[in-house]
Amino acid sequence: MSDQLPQGATIGILGGGQLGRMLSVAASRLGLRTHVFEPGANPPAGHVADAVTTASYEDHDALAEFAASVDVITYEFENIPTAALDVLQELRPIRPGREALRVSQDRLTEKTFLTDLGLRTAPFADITDADSLAAALEVIGTPAILKTRRFGYDGKGQARILGPEDAAKALEDMRGAPAILEGFVEFSCEVSVIAARSADGSVACFDPGENIHREGILRTTTVPARLSGKQRTDAVLLAAQILNALNYVGVMGVELFVTPQGLLVNEMAPRVHNSGHWTQNGCTIDQFEQHIRAVANWPLGDGSRYADVQMENLIGDDLDRLPELAREADTAIHLYGKGAVKAGRKMGHVNRIIRG
Amino acid sequence: MSDQLPQGATIGILGGGQLGRMLSVAASRLGLRTHVFEPGANPPAGHVADAVTTASYEDHDALAEFAASVDVITYEFENIPTAALDVLQELRPIRPGREALRVSQDRLTEKTFLTDLGLRTAPFADITDADSLAAALEVIGTPAILKTRRFGYDGKGQARILGPEDAAKALEDMRGAPAILEGFVEFSCEVSVIAARSADGSVACFDPGENIHREGILRTTTVPARLSGKQRTDAVLLAAQILNALNYVGVMGVELFVTPQGLLVNEMAPRVHNSGHWTQNGCTIDQFEQHIRAVANWPLGDGSRYADVQMENLIGDDLDRLPELAREADTAIHLYGKGAVKAGRKMGHVNRIIRG
Repeated sequence: MSDQLPQGATIGILGGGQLGRMLSVAASRLGLRTHVFEPGANPPAGHVADAVTTASYEDHDALAEFAASVDVITYEFENIPTAALDVLQELRPIRPGREALRVSQDRLTEKTFLTDLGLRTAPFADITDADSLAAALEVIGTPAILKTRRFGYDGKGQARILGPEDAAKALEDMRGAPAILEGFVEFSCEVSVIAARSADGSVACFDPGENIHREGILRTTTVPARLSGKQRTDAVLLAAQILNALNYVGVMGVELFVTPQGLLVNEMAPRVHNSGHWTQNGCTIDQFEQHIRAVANWPLGDGSRYADVQMENLIGDDLDRLPELAREADTAIHLYGKGAVKAGRKMGHVNRIIRG
Repeated sequence: MSDQLPQGATIGILGGGQLGRMLSVAASRLGLRTHVFEPGANPPAGHVADAVTTASYEDHDALAEFAASVDVITYEFENIPTAALDVLQELRPIRPGREALRVSQDRLTEKTFLTDLGLRTAPFADITDADSLAAALEVIGTPAILKTRRFGYDGKGQARILGPEDAAKALEDMRGAPAILEGFVEFSCEVSVIAARSADGSVACFDPGENIHREGILRTTTVPARLSGKQRTDAVLLAAQILNALNYVGVMGVELFVTPQGLLVNEMAPRVHNSGHWTQNGCTIDQFEQHIRAVANWPLGDGSRYADVQMENLIGDDLDRLPELAREADTAIHLYGKGAVKAGRKMGHVNRIIRG
């Protein structure tokens, strides 16, 4: 591609957490610099970025200055305020584009987008008040789960409804935010497809990984996932369909439920994804570099898997296990350099190579 | 180890080139920050370091401020002025230690150290003037090579002597610097052992790689090297002997000639080494992380090799091949973000996985 970003060019990254940190490292492998925009102090990505802007997403001067200093803008999280995007896109390309953000910032829009594509999801309904919730519960049944349409992650902004008697309390938990009711799905396992699409429309998917969550937080991802050949193909084709429909450029994480009736889409994240961290030690080109390649107009790399891997998140005081983890054979440690250990906080992860 | 460097601690790195750059990346995986000290502007390591000090090694105030801001000091090159080390070691530990620097900064001291250990090297002699050169050429014969004792790298400060008639010109090329005459060795191949030693005395070696040089610059390293089982064992034991003798902490590159009479030590470098770059895509823990682990008082990691790899340096306008390289299967690109392409300048390298 003639406009492949050259040596020394700078990628702007919105968000300075661990994903931005690992994106910065991947960019450095391609001779690129990164400039991180992050409201919080001492962002993990700042330790390995060439520059950091500490400012709020409401500070439009800071946003404009940031944009002017970079060649292209990407992000590590999807909940970027629309007004900030308006400022940025006047100055520099944002990849992946606005449409992916619009769709994935709202659970209702996302579910509607997916079903319009002919893909299957859990049953869902738009909830605006007690009446619409009662009506939806009639159709969807219980157990079900009420979620805010926007700004949810790692199980936050969610309330389980085991029977109609839980409805009022669940609605109250939404604190007036627009919500969506989702039915429970019987699934044998949850898998993720980490898919990449380059500017020229090429799509490449990493081998699907199998996820285990606890308390709403991803604990482990294991490759290969327990999928039949057909399920594996279906998963990859389905992810490619989503990326193509959005004219997407970058890496996306697509979470799928495996059910007797086929694959259901649980969630899509328009960014590198925790369930793709195994690629750092299972592939020559990992998800972070694949994302940077796409965003920088490089051809996608070779993401074929060379090893079986289990990724385990290190959450909160899991970090106390570091001395033992550091001595484990076939184990790569990836820490995020976060100062304070807090319960539920992702502090790092390990990738264990599984020998046959 | 109780004094394993904790999350958020900072490693000071003397030198901001590509080795410092890749050391910074490795440190980030362990949750550590880096602070780079480099006299030159816009150092490649600066793009991924948490902090950069731009100052001369003669600026002792800057050195002291740098040392005070870090927890431990390491380096990416061996020719650090002694006076600078004197300032630094008063304030923070330097790993690897002074003894390794003293030995490797001077070719004569290094060769003497090695032969005192009972190891074999090419024949060598101390050259101080025309008379000592003539006498040495009588014993060592021609062809031979005259080298400055200090500050040589990538073929600089060297002059070949094909016959006695070349002696005067060769000596002139040394510009009065103390020199060493080395005899030529008939060898079937050159291999490198990248060896690591932790503070508790554990030693781990990566699988030896086979090197090809052109015009005095490393072009490729291939693993596995063409060595017999006995040669492989000898190479590793010999490297371990060197590290133990120096009470060494960190990674060292040891270059060996394979001859019919056994292994000869060509050179030792008290740092991560170009011939160890293949470990980035052939091992779960690469040479850069192994060095950081040792320096940070972590246990050494699992450096066992999982793939056959060929590392190829990208030198000067080799960078023009980037569009094709980016499309190669099984190929990982590592660029250094250097602004100006110059003939003979190392711009990056690729690691190619060799499928059987």
